[in-house]
Amino acid sequence: MSHTVSPLALPFPELPAIAGVMPRVARARYKAWDRCDLSFVELAPGTSVAGVTTTSKCPSPEVEWCRSALSLGSARALVVSAGNANAFTGGKGRAAVQMVVDTVSAQLACSAHEVFVSATGVIGVPLPQDKARAGLEAAFAASPCSWRDLTDAIGTTDTFAKAATTSAMIGDHRVDLVGVIKGSGMIAPDMATMLGYIFTDASIAPALLQQMLSAANRTTFSCITVDSDTSTSDTVLAFATGQADHPRLETMDSIGTDAFAAALADLCRQLAHLVVRDGEGATKFIEVRVTGAASDDSAHRIALSIANSPLVKTAIAGEDANWGRVVMAVGKAGEPAERDLLSIRFGGVEVAAQGVVVEGYDEAPVAAHLRGQDILVEADLGIGKGRATVWSCDLTHGYISINADYRS
Amino acid sequence: MSHTVSPLALPFPELPAIAGVMPRVARARYKAWDRCDLSFVELAPGTSVAGVTTTSKCPSPEVEWCRSALSLGSARALVVSAGNANAFTGGKGRAAVQMVVDTVSAQLACSAHEVFVSATGVIGVPLPQDKARAGLEAAFAASPCSWRDLTDAIGTTDTFAKAATTSAMIGDHRVDLVGVIKGSGMIAPDMATMLGYIFTDASIAPALLQQMLSAANRTTFSCITVDSDTSTSDTVLAFATGQADHPRLETMDSIGTDAFAAALADLCRQLAHLVVRDGEGATKFIEVRVTGAASDDSAHRIALSIANSPLVKTAIAGEDANWGRVVMAVGKAGEPAERDLLSIRFGGVEVAAQGVVVEGYDEAPVAAHLRGQDILVEADLGIGKGRATVWSCDLTHGYISINADYRS
Repeated sequence: MSHTVSPLALPFPELPAIAGVMPRVARARYKAWDRCDLSFVELAPGTSVAGVTTTSKCPSPEVEWCRSALSLGSARALVVSAGNANAFTGGKGRAAVQMVVDTVSAQLACSAHEVFVSATGVIGVPLPQDKARAGLEAAFAASPCSWRDLTDAIGTTDTFAKAATTSAMIGDHRVDLVGVIKGSGMIAPDMATMLGYIFTDASIAPALLQQMLSAANRTTFSCITVDSDTSTSDTVLAFATGQADHPRLETMDSIGTDAFAAALADLCRQLAHLVVRDGEGATKFIEVRVTGAASDDSAHRIALSIANSPLVKTAIAGEDANWGRVVMAVGKAGEPAERDLLSIRFGGVEVAAQGVVVEGYDEAPVAAHLRGQDILVEADLGIGKGRATVWSCDLTHGYISINADYRS
Repeated sequence: MSHTVSPLALPFPELPAIAGVMPRVARARYKAWDRCDLSFVELAPGTSVAGVTTTSKCPSPEVEWCRSALSLGSARALVVSAGNANAFTGGKGRAAVQMVVDTVSAQLACSAHEVFVSATGVIGVPLPQDKARAGLEAAFAASPCSWRDLTDAIGTTDTFAKAATTSAMIGDHRVDLVGVIKGSGMIAPDMATMLGYIFTDASIAPALLQQMLSAANRTTFSCITVDSDTSTSDTVLAFATGQADHPRLETMDSIGTDAFAAALADLCRQLAHLVVRDGEGATKFIEVRVTGAASDDSAHRIALSIANSPLVKTAIAGEDANWGRVVMAVGKAGEPAERDLLSIRFGGVEVAAQGVVVEGYDEAPVAAHLRGQDILVEADLGIGKGRATVWSCDLTHGYISINADYRS
């Protein structure tokens, strides 16, 4: 944890234990710091796993390993290294991943492909094997830790610890879900997200878990942006330990699947919002809703054009009702649009409709809305039924300070 | 002109008179300022015109007028209003454009479609007809002004006056070209550019002039980005008065066309670079060269992904040789790429090759390069022959200050 705590931070929630999940943390000292930076989460035999990863063409070897291992659908452990992304490190990086999964599979007497790995931090430096090995040995010997300790240990430039929980009823059985996540910069959609891990005691077939996670991802993690920059290492993994005593969810028709899918989507949305709330330099949480577009996909691209526009984001930082910049962002999106059908609202107040500012426009309620922390920008294209919502944050001096000073 | 002068500013050049071009400026007082903000350039009968305009789906009525008028290919006047973009103003905005072109065509006894118009400034406020009319009357009565006066009068948030000149030999006849341009924010490619005007005494058929301008645009104005935000009003117009005494250029095969096209492209590149040098908050001029891509178009998109990345731009602002962010930007571009074939150079120094940092990488010469004002970033994809170059600037506190404070 570094930098001033985000003004949009939320308190760390009360989180239930998840049967079959045992986290431990240790000091690998990947950087010159005195904090836990290696996380080792042991999972009960029989744990199902699903995941979504970055769409980057330059993925880290950890991402490649997870993609490959996901085909088995079974997990016994998760290892997260914070402070070194191990991305763009060639054969040395791949060797470090192999060492980590081999060490853990020997410890747990499981398949290497049941060991999932992530790394986050500076790009281009191979994960030092000696530090990783020593960190793992320390973690094996450590006592189980709290969710808070785990969340702290996976963070890098995060300014607050981000986690969420929810539950679902599967028939008469209550199952719990807990998610932890890290990330505040290099956040863009068209990806999984930063590093996020979801744990549940539910019993779910891997293919079904994957189907539900992918669906939740499309409307949550893929709908956030801090700075339009997509990481080499984004990964969200969901682990279902199967320790809860309910009939296993096998298909979308199984009793309780709907409830679980809804709970999973809710958890993903909570986690995605937390990442935006820790967006580098953020002082405003922005929801952009686009309606009336040619299609949902078109609406999504227009919403991202608005949410990624530096001029829109700086106007909101300045609490300036500069709706002309929203017009600009709609116009540049390259999507079907009719200038003279476009209408725009801030905080629910219509400012422009049918291609002109509304008659007798009163800026006062809009200005009051913009002085708040939660900003709503709506654009209706007036040409179809496509709709999408994305979430972003403002662009401030804090973003510049953080990123012009961060050393490679 | 406002804000502190860009540290990348260049001195205003010596510019030759162009026969058949007579600029005048006046005070329309579109904003509460005491400066000339209405420009009226009279052009000799027989002047050819060509133009490229924004690709925004929400273009200003001025842009729509120019697109329509360009089909005639003949120009007698240019009118530029600074301080009010007249964009997104519906019927009132269109009426203001009609009044301007009608007033000028009556004054010059020409067709309304020989009058070209531009406007720049705040979006969403109709151009006030009374101010525009009074400004035009004052301009009609004014004495001809200098290129410098014209350049100052078309500027808004520009911090320095931007103009360039070159010449070409058409057979034995020398022709001159002068360009003036304004723009520093809401600058993104896939467009013409901000407002730019090119004047030459050469005699050129309109269709040929358009062909040459479009070609020049593709490698100059369409290859710059300040903030990835595309304006509603971008326009570049080229006027050829035909006052020079050489056989008229009619086709690409006419003697001298090659020389003129090269001079035009050179002028466009100079003007495009000047806009980047006045990028809002800019302290570094960045050239991004991509080679070895699957195609030239693919190289262009990858170069823009690098040039638009907030993390790359802030790293350069911080003089940080954070080449991992270049890897990230290549990876997120959505274009064909092979991580393990990618190599990256800063200032000509190879820092990463074949997917890893180079053996014995010495950051010292790279750090020295980054302390300079002119930064060169090169990425070779290693998979094809596609290449592209784009120009951008760094992202600094200055950008935030300018855009979080600018009132709509």
